[in-house]
Amino acid sequence: MKREKLKVKIIPLGGINEIGKNMTAIEFKDDIIVIDCGLKFPEEEMFGIDIVIPDISYLLKNRDKVKGIFFTHGHEDHIGALPYILKQLNVPVYGTKLTLGIVETKLKEHGLLGTTDLRRVKPKDVIKLDSASVEFIKTNHSIADSVAIAIHTPLGVILHTGDFKVDYTPIDGEVIDLPRFAELGKKGVLVMMADSTNVERPGYTMSERIVGDNFENMFAKAKGRVIVATFASNIHRIQQIITVAQKHGRKVAVSGRSMENIVQVATELGYLEMEKDSFISIDNINKYPNDKIVIITTGSQGEPMSALTRMASSEHRKVNIVEGDMVVISATPIPGNEKLVSRIINQLFKKGADVIYEALAYLHVSGHACQEELKLIHTLVRPRFFIPVHGEYRHLKHHAELAVKLGLSQRNVLIPDNGDVIEITRDSIRKNGTVTSGQVFVDGLGVGDVGNIVLRDRKHLSQDGILTVVVTIEKENGAVIAGPDIISRGFVYVRESEDLMEEAKEIVKSVLKECEEKKITDWATMKSNIKDELRIFLYEKTKRKPMILPIIMEI
Amino acid sequence: MKREKLKVKIIPLGGINEIGKNMTAIEFKDDIIVIDCGLKFPEEEMFGIDIVIPDISYLLKNRDKVKGIFFTHGHEDHIGALPYILKQLNVPVYGTKLTLGIVETKLKEHGLLGTTDLRRVKPKDVIKLDSASVEFIKTNHSIADSVAIAIHTPLGVILHTGDFKVDYTPIDGEVIDLPRFAELGKKGVLVMMADSTNVERPGYTMSERIVGDNFENMFAKAKGRVIVATFASNIHRIQQIITVAQKHGRKVAVSGRSMENIVQVATELGYLEMEKDSFISIDNINKYPNDKIVIITTGSQGEPMSALTRMASSEHRKVNIVEGDMVVISATPIPGNEKLVSRIINQLFKKGADVIYEALAYLHVSGHACQEELKLIHTLVRPRFFIPVHGEYRHLKHHAELAVKLGLSQRNVLIPDNGDVIEITRDSIRKNGTVTSGQVFVDGLGVGDVGNIVLRDRKHLSQDGILTVVVTIEKENGAVIAGPDIISRGFVYVRESEDLMEEAKEIVKSVLKECEEKKITDWATMKSNIKDELRIFLYEKTKRKPMILPIIMEI
Repeated sequence: MKREKLKVKIIPLGGINEIGKNMTAIEFKDDIIVIDCGLKFPEEEMFGIDIVIPDISYLLKNRDKVKGIFFTHGHEDHIGALPYILKQLNVPVYGTKLTLGIVETKLKEHGLLGTTDLRRVKPKDVIKLDSASVEFIKTNHSIADSVAIAIHTPLGVILHTGDFKVDYTPIDGEVIDLPRFAELGKKGVLVMMADSTNVERPGYTMSERIVGDNFENMFAKAKGRVIVATFASNIHRIQQIITVAQKHGRKVAVSGRSMENIVQVATELGYLEMEKDSFISIDNINKYPNDKIVIITTGSQGEPMSALTRMASSEHRKVNIVEGDMVVISATPIPGNEKLVSRIINQLFKKGADVIYEALAYLHVSGHACQEELKLIHTLVRPRFFIPVHGEYRHLKHHAELAVKLGLSQRNVLIPDNGDVIEITRDSIRKNGTVTSGQVFVDGLGVGDVGNIVLRDRKHLSQDGILTVVVTIEKENGAVIAGPDIISRGFVYVRESEDLMEEAKEIVKSVLKECEEKKITDWATMKSNIKDELRIFLYEKTKRKPMILPIIMEI
Repeated sequence: MKREKLKVKIIPLGGINEIGKNMTAIEFKDDIIVIDCGLKFPEEEMFGIDIVIPDISYLLKNRDKVKGIFFTHGHEDHIGALPYILKQLNVPVYGTKLTLGIVETKLKEHGLLGTTDLRRVKPKDVIKLDSASVEFIKTNHSIADSVAIAIHTPLGVILHTGDFKVDYTPIDGEVIDLPRFAELGKKGVLVMMADSTNVERPGYTMSERIVGDNFENMFAKAKGRVIVATFASNIHRIQQIITVAQKHGRKVAVSGRSMENIVQVATELGYLEMEKDSFISIDNINKYPNDKIVIITTGSQGEPMSALTRMASSEHRKVNIVEGDMVVISATPIPGNEKLVSRIINQLFKKGADVIYEALAYLHVSGHACQEELKLIHTLVRPRFFIPVHGEYRHLKHHAELAVKLGLSQRNVLIPDNGDVIEITRDSIRKNGTVTSGQVFVDGLGVGDVGNIVLRDRKHLSQDGILTVVVTIEKENGAVIAGPDIISRGFVYVRESEDLMEEAKEIVKSVLKECEEKKITDWATMKSNIKDELRIFLYEKTKRKPMILPIIMEI
């Protein structure tokens, strides 16, 4: 009997050809190691959907092998699906201190804190599993406590960078552990997966520190309150705001649920340094002069219910924007959010605030490596095989090209898709089949109960509304006893369309009459005739195609 | 009796605090001059709406005074509402050759060509009205044949720049008539309205010519077909593509309805120069080698039905993207379109095309003046009063500040709103009341029949769908004869929610029973009880709030 070659399987379950929903399964012998389990925010056409999570059918089928979920950092697109996954697959969860701190808040909301096996790790820690061991390596990112993950197997090292950048002067002084990357590279890395988000951007991502310098300049100019909107999870950004505020003798208040949560967690865990009494409650901001106040708020993406949006539209109960306020939007709009952000900027200006935003330099820096940083990591690690991850196809393709430019052979680079089973031996990388993967929609309490049919109906309803036709009919002979009644919603302004509705009713009547004459008592045929005739009539009259819902009651 | 002071009224009917729907009424004695009448594409939340046009109630009330519609150029946001406006207000329409050429195509589609009084003008022309005269002044923009408009009144000159940029080396050699702006400035301009679109951008907008140089480089590198997506109306861009194509011995085909229309109009009117036989039909592209073909296409904004979108998704009947195709997206995504454009880029890459887009320099230049160009116009014209137009509030505010920085007194600058009546005398500018203004929704054949109630319903339906409850009841005593039946669309996947629906039915039954017992035969109360109970039940079970539509049939 020929001995089977040793191999490792890498199965991306999310994060490929998309931004968000990051999740990767790495399988070696009897171990499945899951890196991250993130959520994705719904696309425009996913009407009514709250969030999207990965399909984990493959993990459920192989649940005995799954040794744990290993987090690279605490962003929603890496941890957000955890509560939903844990309800089906209760495995140990590994993460660094801040990551687990944020995870805990989330588990608390879902009532899962008591039943989850959380295992705190720190950079350089190694977790031994049955056939492999998992090492955590310090990186830099737009959230503190981020790590890369190296999986050591007899076949070689599998390295996943997680989201990362190279920051030589990070706010917490903890520089990405480049020496360890170099060391692994020297010993030999079998395969590397690396963040592709910023591969289209030349040069280097600037250090987070430059944002602080700009805050310094702005705070010096501000004559009233300073309100800074940024991502709640960017602890280093928040630290810089606090530091500058203290320097200028300003008190700091926070607004927005996620900002309050994260600031509390980060403070408890020691990730935020501040003088005593620096923080005040948002309830107390009016007890101080305006030029002694800084408010850190959510809403940098113009999110409809966020604190900044409420301030801009005078719906915030504690903060009323007044002339002299300086509002700093310390973020770049994520693609798709440009209009929301712009709307808020307009509203803030109208209220007399001075609004400082992206057009100005370095109010924000990215958390992802640009081309030169990617080249650095590739050059240090020199993997035998490379799989670009975390990005749309354009990013993956450009990242693959970058690897080839740096000397890797084209056939040692593989652009994956979600669900691909990527088999790697010592000397080969190839796709070998696929597993179930995809997007699971979360809508209210429902997980997966909204599918494409429901979404298609919602889209249809959103375009032209609905027209319900009801008629009561005698079972025996199909004679109309009551109706037809026609009720529409989202179609036309009813009061101005009475004639149209009367005509539509006549059409239904004539269809029913014809059915009666032809002795058609099969409701399905009757309904479909009503639908067809009405659709033609309405399109001719209005060039619209509302959903038509005929309901026949029989007595 | 005190003699009333001479005054001119400026009434923006669109284009203020928004991008699009540009329309301004200028009233002096018995003349109302309308500058432009554009459309706006619907915002995200305007479900099902095709286009948005200005409300012209004020013009209809004063129809005898309206002397004509005067176009600055042929973009949709300046001419697109014309067919709808003409149906209510048939007045002479003035425009330059290309502008009217494009207008004619539009009127033909609406069957209005025969009944419209089109009057062709050229730069330097002056149209004399009863109390004022209208002068056209050559400008540069991303469409050929653009003009500014100066209205001469005894009170002074009212100058509207239209959309403009300063291009010292335009493709057609026709530079903006800066000497005329200077001359008017020297004589004295009472009030200027100027384009604010790019006021947040420092420096100058580059000349259109630089895009041609880049085409030159790209065409030289292309090994297969070159497919260029750009705005159909950008005749100069199209000219440059043709010129470079000819130089490289490539034939040119066009795809997309608006591209075909505009190329035809522009060719007929002499705005496109090309060698004989340069153009071929899209049907014939396969008769030539791939490296002898250029295709100019619509879809640079990722518009869902556009030619490029169809190519990317293999739905184009004539063009199938193959490995070796070079696709150039010669446009910047308009805010809100980023995701659509990105999706197409991904699809094209997956098909093996080489895609060149915005990240690379100068595949596109803006048609609007940046800060330095605006300063130039302000400095040449030196108006007594200034009104920033064409932009969101942030743009108008920044443009107002720019004018003040250049020396204008704050009280001589007025930031308008749509519908404001701005009264100007020799020495004052002020708002004096408002007229009806706003957005009229066009949906299919309906103009204005979809209002906020319909849109609110469409939004509600899009989020959580609808649940229709039907019951047939005896008129006399309220006894249930048939039903209740419950039918939902866009709410839950029905097959997996049978229990939920059964429970919902039980709730309706118990409401009906209670009504019968309490002898409630008032249908409105009955319906509202059903709604209330169901709403509470469904929210508890699903955390969703579908529209609930109870229908009671009586016999």
